[in-house]
Amino acid sequence: MRQRVTLVLLIVAIGVIDVVQILRTNAVAQAVVAVVDAQPRDPLSAWNDGPVKQRIVAFVAAVTDAGSTNFVPPGERIAVFDNDGTLWAERPIYVQLAFALDRVKTLAPSHPEWKTEPPFDAVLKGDLKTVAESGDKGLVQILTATNTGMTTSAYTQAVADWIAHAEHPRFKRPYTDLVYRPMLELLAYLRDNGFKPYIVSGGTVEFMRPWSERAYGIPPEQVIGTTFVTTFHTRQDGVPTLLREPKIDFVDDGPGKPVAIQKFIGRRPIFAFGNSDGDQQMLEWTVAGPGVRFAGLVHHTDAQREWAYDRMSHIGRLDKALDEAKAKNWAVVDMEQDWKRVVAFDGGTR
Amino acid sequence: MRQRVTLVLLIVAIGVIDVVQILRTNAVAQAVVAVVDAQPRDPLSAWNDGPVKQRIVAFVAAVTDAGSTNFVPPGERIAVFDNDGTLWAERPIYVQLAFALDRVKTLAPSHPEWKTEPPFDAVLKGDLKTVAESGDKGLVQILTATNTGMTTSAYTQAVADWIAHAEHPRFKRPYTDLVYRPMLELLAYLRDNGFKPYIVSGGTVEFMRPWSERAYGIPPEQVIGTTFVTTFHTRQDGVPTLLREPKIDFVDDGPGKPVAIQKFIGRRPIFAFGNSDGDQQMLEWTVAGPGVRFAGLVHHTDAQREWAYDRMSHIGRLDKALDEAKAKNWAVVDMEQDWKRVVAFDGGTR
Repeated sequence: MRQRVTLVLLIVAIGVIDVVQILRTNAVAQAVVAVVDAQPRDPLSAWNDGPVKQRIVAFVAAVTDAGSTNFVPPGERIAVFDNDGTLWAERPIYVQLAFALDRVKTLAPSHPEWKTEPPFDAVLKGDLKTVAESGDKGLVQILTATNTGMTTSAYTQAVADWIAHAEHPRFKRPYTDLVYRPMLELLAYLRDNGFKPYIVSGGTVEFMRPWSERAYGIPPEQVIGTTFVTTFHTRQDGVPTLLREPKIDFVDDGPGKPVAIQKFIGRRPIFAFGNSDGDQQMLEWTVAGPGVRFAGLVHHTDAQREWAYDRMSHIGRLDKALDEAKAKNWAVVDMEQDWKRVVAFDGGTR
Repeated sequence: MRQRVTLVLLIVAIGVIDVVQILRTNAVAQAVVAVVDAQPRDPLSAWNDGPVKQRIVAFVAAVTDAGSTNFVPPGERIAVFDNDGTLWAERPIYVQLAFALDRVKTLAPSHPEWKTEPPFDAVLKGDLKTVAESGDKGLVQILTATNTGMTTSAYTQAVADWIAHAEHPRFKRPYTDLVYRPMLELLAYLRDNGFKPYIVSGGTVEFMRPWSERAYGIPPEQVIGTTFVTTFHTRQDGVPTLLREPKIDFVDDGPGKPVAIQKFIGRRPIFAFGNSDGDQQMLEWTVAGPGVRFAGLVHHTDAQREWAYDRMSHIGRLDKALDEAKAKNWAVVDMEQDWKRVVAFDGGTR
C-alpha cells in the first residue's frame, strides 16, 4: 500500500511541476500572472504620494514588523479618529445640528409653545442667523429638546430614519456620501494591518452608532462620544427601558477625549487623527506614550471640492492644534494637495 | 498544451481517488482518522451534563446556525458577564477590598493621621469587624483613599504589582487562581462561536483591566465597571497625565448595568451571566430583546470547594434575582451539581 501512495504522490508532484512549466510558457497563463502581479493595488489610492501618505505607510510598516523594536502587538494597535471634519464634512453646520433643526420642525406640532419660545421660534422660521446668535446656550437647548426625552430604541430609530432621507444642502446627497474617501481607505488599511479603529467625537455617541458601521465599518462599541444621562426604568407591563434624560453626562471634547479614551478603551492609542483644536489633547495623549506614535490633522484647504477654513472658523477651529502640529512635527493633511479625491462622488482627481 | 494539462489533471484526480481508497483500507490511516474523530473534545468539560450546560450548548447552536430563524450575525453576539462571584470568587471579601485594605497598610507611613482616624485605624489594627461596621460610608472612604489620588498609569502599576503577589487567605494562592474553570471554558466556547464577551462589574474598571486579559482572555476595552472621575492635566514639563479624582463618576451596579451596557457597547447583549441581585437588571435587559436570549445565574451552593450563600449574604446577595430566575426560567447554575471542577487547582471531580 505504501508504495502505491508514494507512486500517487510522485504522479501528483510531477503533475504540479508540469503545470508550472506550462504556465511559464503559455501566453494565456502569462496574462493571468500579470493580473495576479497587479493584485496588490495601492490601498491608499485616493491619497497623493505626498509626505502624509508616506508617513502613514512608514508608521504602519514599523509597528507591524515583528522583527522591529517598534513592533506593537495587534491587540495594542488602537487608532482613534475624530468624526466631524475628520471622517466626514462638518460644513455648513455639524450634521447632528442639522438633525436637531429638522427634528424641531418634526416635533413642533406637539410643542405649540415653540412658536414663540426662543431659540425654537427662530428654527421654525428658518432664521438660522438668530439661531446661531443664541450661542452655546441656545444650541444646547435645541440639542437637548431634540435628542432626549425618549427611549434609546426610539432615538436610534429616529436617527436611522433621518440619516436615510436627509440631504446635504450643498451637495444634495445623503450626509453619509460626505464621508472622506481617503479616510475610508485609511480605516480599511489600518484594519487590514491589525489595528482597531475607534471614533472619539464631540458629537453624541448615540447619534453616530446607528450608521457608523455602514458608513465607516466601525461597529457601535467602537464609537465614543458625548453622552446624555440615561436611566433604567421598568414599564408597568414589566418591560425594561432606557430613557434619555435632558442632561449632559459627559462632554467628549478637548481634554475630555483622553479621559474618554481611558474610560472606554483603557489603552493609550498609538495612532490618532483629528482636525480641530478639540482634538489637541487626544493627539497629545497619543504621542506621549512610549515607542513610535502617529498624530495627524486634516487641514481643510480645499474650497472647491469641500471647504477651506482653520484659525478663524467657528466650526472645527484649527488654531492652537495647528501651531502644536508644526512645533511637534505632527502630520498635517493639506486636503487640496494630499487628497486625490475627497468624497466618492467628487469630479476629477488631483 | 491544453491536452497535456487535462492529462495531468486527470492523473491528479485519479491520484486523489486512490489516496481516499488507500486511507479507507489502511490500518495506519484508520488510526489517523480515529485521532481526527476524537479531536472535537468537549469544550465545556468542567461542566457536568446537567440542564445548564445543555441550555448553553442549545443556545449557541441556535444563534450560530445560519439556516435558523434564531441566527444572530457574529457582530451582534454580545455576551456580558458580572465579575465578582460570577467569574471568580468574591469570598471572604471582594478582591478589590482586599487590595484596598493592603494598600491602607502600604500607604500608612505617608498618612500618620490614619492611626487615629476611623475607619483607617481599624484597618491598621486588623480589626475587620469594626471595618465592616463602618458600613458603606467607611468602605467608600477606604476605596477612595486607596484607589484615587494618582495618575492612571501609577494606579495600573499598583494593581498589577499587588495582584502578582497577593494571596487568597483561604487557598493561599494568587487571587487569579480563583477564577472559575467552567466559566473560562464558557468564555472560550463563546469566543470560538463568534461571541464578544464583556465584563460588566460593580467593581471599578481600572482595578480589573490590568489582569483581565491574562486571567480571562478579555482585553481592557471589553471591561466595563464602576468609574471614578478622571481629569486631564498637562504637567509643568509638558507631559499630559490623567489623574484619578476622589469622586465616584458612575456606579455600574443594579440598574446601572444596562445603562453602562448601552453607553459602552451600544448593542443589547444576547447572553448574560451574573450571580447576585446586582445583576438582575442586566439579565432583564438582555432577555427583553427580540429573538432567543440566554440569562444565567451562578448559585453558590458548594461550601466544600468554594462557598455556599445566597439570600442572606451581605456579599453577592442572591434573593430577588433568584425568584425572578425561577419565575422566568433563567438558567441557574447549582455550583455543587453543575460544575465538575470549580477552580483549576481543586481536588477531584464531581
